[in-house]
Amino acid sequence: MLKATSEILKQKGITRPTVILDKGRAQNNIRRMAAKARRSGAIFRPHFKTHQSPVVGRWFHDAGVRHIAVSSLAMAEKFADLGWRDITLALLFNPLELPRAARLAQYLEQRSGRLGLLVDSPYTAGIIAGGIDSPTDIWLKVDTGYGRTGLKWDDTETLRATLAACRELAVPAGLLTHSGHSYHARGAEAIRHIYEKTITRLTAARDQSGHAGLHLSVGDTPCCSVVDDLSSCDEIRPGNFVFHDLMQLEIGSCAAGDLASATVCPVVGIYPDRRQVVLHGGAVHLSKESLAGPIYGCLGTVAEAGLGEVLPQAPLVSLSQEHGVVELSAENFAALAGDLKPGDLVLVWPVHSCLNCDLMREQMAVPTTF
Amino acid sequence: MLKATSEILKQKGITRPTVILDKGRAQNNIRRMAAKARRSGAIFRPHFKTHQSPVVGRWFHDAGVRHIAVSSLAMAEKFADLGWRDITLALLFNPLELPRAARLAQYLEQRSGRLGLLVDSPYTAGIIAGGIDSPTDIWLKVDTGYGRTGLKWDDTETLRATLAACRELAVPAGLLTHSGHSYHARGAEAIRHIYEKTITRLTAARDQSGHAGLHLSVGDTPCCSVVDDLSSCDEIRPGNFVFHDLMQLEIGSCAAGDLASATVCPVVGIYPDRRQVVLHGGAVHLSKESLAGPIYGCLGTVAEAGLGEVLPQAPLVSLSQEHGVVELSAENFAALAGDLKPGDLVLVWPVHSCLNCDLMREQMAVPTTF
Repeated sequence: MLKATSEILKQKGITRPTVILDKGRAQNNIRRMAAKARRSGAIFRPHFKTHQSPVVGRWFHDAGVRHIAVSSLAMAEKFADLGWRDITLALLFNPLELPRAARLAQYLEQRSGRLGLLVDSPYTAGIIAGGIDSPTDIWLKVDTGYGRTGLKWDDTETLRATLAACRELAVPAGLLTHSGHSYHARGAEAIRHIYEKTITRLTAARDQSGHAGLHLSVGDTPCCSVVDDLSSCDEIRPGNFVFHDLMQLEIGSCAAGDLASATVCPVVGIYPDRRQVVLHGGAVHLSKESLAGPIYGCLGTVAEAGLGEVLPQAPLVSLSQEHGVVELSAENFAALAGDLKPGDLVLVWPVHSCLNCDLMREQMAVPTTF
Repeated sequence: MLKATSEILKQKGITRPTVILDKGRAQNNIRRMAAKARRSGAIFRPHFKTHQSPVVGRWFHDAGVRHIAVSSLAMAEKFADLGWRDITLALLFNPLELPRAARLAQYLEQRSGRLGLLVDSPYTAGIIAGGIDSPTDIWLKVDTGYGRTGLKWDDTETLRATLAACRELAVPAGLLTHSGHSYHARGAEAIRHIYEKTITRLTAARDQSGHAGLHLSVGDTPCCSVVDDLSSCDEIRPGNFVFHDLMQLEIGSCAAGDLASATVCPVVGIYPDRRQVVLHGGAVHLSKESLAGPIYGCLGTVAEAGLGEVLPQAPLVSLSQEHGVVELSAENFAALAGDLKPGDLVLVWPVHSCLNCDLMREQMAVPTTF
């Protein structure tokens, strides 16, 4: 089974650790999320930090997407350069980047576009208001339970003060939250519960704000994937869903057949006595993100037409800078790895596709695809 | 204290997550290791995977270094291009890269240089011997206890078969090991014990090999840093020691004053109620490598002249893709973070400088330095 996968991957001319995408699966993921947003009457603003790829960006464009989120100013500039016109820099604004952000806001304005920035204090909102020369959407980052950034949903005083600090060209656009604690949830019911609480708190914050017109924007892949009706928010910003990964599979926000990115790794060592296969493919390719175990990924199969199955019986049990170690039971070693040789290629499903693709960012410019 | 550090860092024009090197400290680390190698009569072949930087490479060159190790063929080609002529590709050779490795071996041969490759099976040694047209050093990777790659030190049969498969232009150069288990050791005595066992086993393997002339090459930073007399081996290949990091500090292979690389991060959020400061600086800058806690790094100070102190009381307790969260005691929050604002800059000591620098590889071309 692994030998057959190796033969197909070799036909693609792969010789070193290489990200491989299943275009059909990714486009399905995009279409499904776009359709759900449409049904719910919400703007679909996918987070491009997951892929950082002009090619994958084009797949979104083909599905009708015109609004995007990014996680650094450099990424915003890159996608502006590629023709994207409505961009939210979806992490708290860093005042040191004001001159550069002002230039980008002007660039987008001149092209009938718009830059969005995030704040959670009157201090930062005031800095933007005082230094920007183009109309800019100000999103108030609200903490609805994740506890990382954002003003607390029930801190009405700071909320109102931050809105008051948005003036002139810094236009209050809405309340934005990232329910990152959904990553600790397991199963649909737990995820739906987080979504409901998120919406309740975001709505309460808007009610207290004195600005009934503020839009509500939510962002995490588990909630956006599992909840069917997203009509209680005005915008969704999931990112990871385009590829999903082993973590999403464990959370319960996707099926194995939705996994759309993986990394092909050459086998460099085979050790039957300890039932291990060592790959060229380590922390600099996959990241050290792990699931309980720890497990740093697991092997998979491919078919002629695309990515295949997940083999949980073939986990990566350790990961150093350049090497990953796959450990198998005696039975699985014989069945899966018995005929592998150095120079064969295996497919590794990543734990976290965003970090995997970021590490492989040079390859994402022109990704290898099925 | 943090405010003073921020002011100095702002003078350097830093506005986003940025690696910063202390040239004086790094050059001290290089000189000290070079002197020890000279005293021990061993070739000093630093591993350039830690920094991947032409500029830091020049510091090594200035200290008299002419032999290097790298961890990918692309890295080997890059440093060959920069004028390095004696390069060991210090991970098990991947047979799929044979044509490209053969071209590099020829390129180096034409410039009176030499490529080194690693094997741990007759299979891979035979592939190299059959496909290379320039003299190439073949290093037999030996497992002396780490248990990742390499033929077992007492597996004389495979050792001899692998040596026999090296023929014509594939010249057996020596036995090479990486005692990566020294990373689990704590304190000088435990590290010395690993070194002694490594040398005993490597020497026994050479005795059994029938090739008395094989060189012995060892590589880990803890052993090379802690052991004073390395004369029982012929070559040392440490990499991390040039910068060290919090992990080396915990292992006991460096002092705080040896830490020579860090990452400057902008403060984007301040949350006195939970005594947390949130940084733009996450897994895509620092990597998810952690120490027990988990701890993903900790804050530090700088002086006008260079990097300063470690502040273990200011640890990064969580790390997502773009954000790091520093959590302090009430007392330390008041003392250290009371006057911080979004847009101030803090210094973060990484847990693992190699992964940190790899993530920041574009910046390492022309690194920011003291």
